[in-house]
Amino acid sequence: MGRLEESIGGLKYNDQGLIPAIVVDAETKQVLMMAWMNAEALARTVRTGKTHFWSRSRGKLWLKGEASGHTQEVRGIYVDCDMDTLVVEVLQQVAACHEGYRSCFFRKLDANGVWQVVAEKVFDPDKVY
Amino acid sequence: MGRLEESIGGLKYNDQGLIPAIVVDAETKQVLMMAWMNAEALARTVRTGKTHFWSRSRGKLWLKGEASGHTQEVRGIYVDCDMDTLVVEVLQQVAACHEGYRSCFFRKLDANGVWQVVAEKVFDPDKVY
Repeated sequence: MGRLEESIGGLKYNDQGLIPAIVVDAETKQVLMMAWMNAEALARTVRTGKTHFWSRSRGKLWLKGEASGHTQEVRGIYVDCDMDTLVVEVLQQVAACHEGYRSCFFRKLDANGVWQVVAEKVFDPDKVY
Repeated sequence: MGRLEESIGGLKYNDQGLIPAIVVDAETKQVLMMAWMNAEALARTVRTGKTHFWSRSRGKLWLKGEASGHTQEVRGIYVDCDMDTLVVEVLQQVAACHEGYRSCFFRKLDANGVWQVVAEKVFDPDKVY
């Protein structure tokens, strides 16, 4: 077994065999999205240099950007103290969010306790999907 | 029901009633840690201005820093497009990681596929816990 396989095998996956991956913009450090990887998604991410995830709703591996072209080029992969969460630094093409925002975290809780949109759309989802 | 309760109640929790919260340094934007909140942990976080989480291993609410004094003062709470993940921006006292590092993500996958420590400890855990 290679070192990469050992490093991937040594992670703590949940009972569905998944680990959360926090995707961060390598330049601005902004958190872009969070998605789930299984061991195969992580191996493909490392091998191809583009992020792959496990879709829990569709029950299959996906290449981020396969539909939109908004791929993520991997710049670094980090693991936490408990070996159960990843941070993936990427160069993001266009935007991470399928709703048209650069980051999926485009709503902020305001002083009245209401989620408010605080970002601008960078593309029109109707023209991309 | 108040607006805050509605906003908290409208989130998508997993089948254990939990939602992942990614904690980010408000100044440097560095991802510090990821932990889980239930509705009550989030409500306390908003009310007190200090992060609270649900400990899955201990089965109880905890105030981050209750043992170490390394609390996190909340500067902003964001939710993603799917309403199932939070980002919490904080001012971090000393360090987030119980192993003595500023961030829990102190290991990076190197070109040989090995997890390497890439950060310096900022405190000695043996003297704090």
